[in-house]
Amino acid sequence: MDFNLSAGMFDSELNFNPLVSDKTYDVMILGGGPAGLTAAVYCIRKGVSTGLIVKEIGGQVALTAGVENYMGYRYINGVELVQKFKEQVFQFGIDYDEGTAVQSIDAGDIKKVHFEDGRVFSAKALIIATGKSWRKLGVPGEEEFRGRGVAYCSTCDAPFFSGKNVVVVGGGNSGVEAAIDLARVAEGVTMVQFLEKLTGDTILIDKLSAFKNVRVIYESEVTSIDGRDSVESVSVKNRKTGVVDQIAAQGIFVEIGLIPNSGIVKGLLQLNQAGEIMVDCSCRTSVPGIFAAGDVTDVPFKQIIVAGGEGAKAALTACNYVLNR
Amino acid sequence: MDFNLSAGMFDSELNFNPLVSDKTYDVMILGGGPAGLTAAVYCIRKGVSTGLIVKEIGGQVALTAGVENYMGYRYINGVELVQKFKEQVFQFGIDYDEGTAVQSIDAGDIKKVHFEDGRVFSAKALIIATGKSWRKLGVPGEEEFRGRGVAYCSTCDAPFFSGKNVVVVGGGNSGVEAAIDLARVAEGVTMVQFLEKLTGDTILIDKLSAFKNVRVIYESEVTSIDGRDSVESVSVKNRKTGVVDQIAAQGIFVEIGLIPNSGIVKGLLQLNQAGEIMVDCSCRTSVPGIFAAGDVTDVPFKQIIVAGGEGAKAALTACNYVLNR
Repeated sequence: MDFNLSAGMFDSELNFNPLVSDKTYDVMILGGGPAGLTAAVYCIRKGVSTGLIVKEIGGQVALTAGVENYMGYRYINGVELVQKFKEQVFQFGIDYDEGTAVQSIDAGDIKKVHFEDGRVFSAKALIIATGKSWRKLGVPGEEEFRGRGVAYCSTCDAPFFSGKNVVVVGGGNSGVEAAIDLARVAEGVTMVQFLEKLTGDTILIDKLSAFKNVRVIYESEVTSIDGRDSVESVSVKNRKTGVVDQIAAQGIFVEIGLIPNSGIVKGLLQLNQAGEIMVDCSCRTSVPGIFAAGDVTDVPFKQIIVAGGEGAKAALTACNYVLNR
Repeated sequence: MDFNLSAGMFDSELNFNPLVSDKTYDVMILGGGPAGLTAAVYCIRKGVSTGLIVKEIGGQVALTAGVENYMGYRYINGVELVQKFKEQVFQFGIDYDEGTAVQSIDAGDIKKVHFEDGRVFSAKALIIATGKSWRKLGVPGEEEFRGRGVAYCSTCDAPFFSGKNVVVVGGGNSGVEAAIDLARVAEGVTMVQFLEKLTGDTILIDKLSAFKNVRVIYESEVTSIDGRDSVESVSVKNRKTGVVDQIAAQGIFVEIGLIPNSGIVKGLLQLNQAGEIMVDCSCRTSVPGIFAAGDVTDVPFKQIIVAGGEGAKAALTACNYVLNR
């Protein structure tokens, strides 16, 4: 028996068709990150008719410099991993749309997905896997040096800054946790906090204070990120005095929060206070026939392998729902 | 910046030390399948002191011929995938024990893991990821002829029965898949099914029906496995008539399901009726400081990527528990 279906496929062989308006899909998936792409593979392999709607393929993985914690690859860059996920979906052939914004969703017995360009698609079940976006600083250099010193995920990227000097922006839990992660490996960590004190949990702040290589600059904000090929320094302005300091650093972690891409289901699905879609352990939302997976949900950890696992669960739960209707 | 830390590592470079009795680990992980190995990578990368206790590395993945639904690989065989997971753990160095049976666990503030050989190890948090094992028939001859005609994994052992007559016990997906594997190589395959029809997926049963060398005996059960040095015949009793037939066979594949390896935590953790460890969506068990992940838990779908995702969640929840004690 030869299971090897995968040898020698190139990008040109990626196999997909446009979405069809006058059919009802079994499952329609919104989102092209690890959760959405994994859900697609599981739905297709279950033999249900599947549509995939993607804004930007790869989600946040495509924006990650190096991935060391996706099992199966000791190291892979984000773009390569996305390419592998993509090939795994498109080897089968799928009805697919990329780049169009979704305007709204109707949640009747048959779900309707309305595109901003006026097209409407139907499905018995939906999987929402639209992910999160990092909240940006919006300062010069942030886009330019993304993946070349500008990072957003300390769990993913802290080990790359071993022995280096880094800045962490943000003094909430994410910022403090990032600073702790980095303090273990980096030469020095400078936290830049907008307010006059850190707002993370006391227990985390206590923990942080045990590190001698961390300093906090209060009531300050980053005004630019500078360097030649990669980050070399960060400009920090004191909000009271207006004085701008240059901090030498090879990395900057922006930890000022994530925004769940849940706008299109607001008012339709139950969200938590952070705007995340609330799901049970089988990825069911508050509306029958609508499932959700990955970073857009209230699952606590935002990791590729977690999103993949949740995508598989959402797909299998959705397939059971469709097949047992 | 060169992020590639992983090039050129071979098996000989796998980096581990024996477990140490006179220290308290932050996290100790029991289990070497996808859940346990993923948990190990996440714990090590969080910088907590980690011990890993493994009975057989790879869990059931190591016994799987081909994997097509683990994201990142359109096709990979089970042994190769396990090797990749293993290298990913051992690149970091970890305190490790393989092959020793665990006798019991004490769940105080500091958890104690007692080995059957008398050694005891301590940790602030435990992750139970011990997976599932093949369910046994429990009939005379089963233990005696194990490895001498009695087998559980057609993927592993079918080739040994080339040109021979074999019995497959069980008519669910596992049984039908085993019969298909065996029909390709064996002289004849006799399926013994407890119920009055096969319960596997239609697509698999259709596939099975293409083989002329397969017969199914319904509403029957195996009562003994007989032979001198190895299996020579299998006794099968009709559940309605009580008549026992002797079927000449050199092999018998037992495909009647899987049981969770939760014996060591019975009475300690809350289990469901199937004996699976009950966990919340963050992999917490009923005992603070003990977490669980993968097939041994009540998570509904037994898939590599799901187990990996759960392993990551268990690790991150356990690290938070340890760091916030």
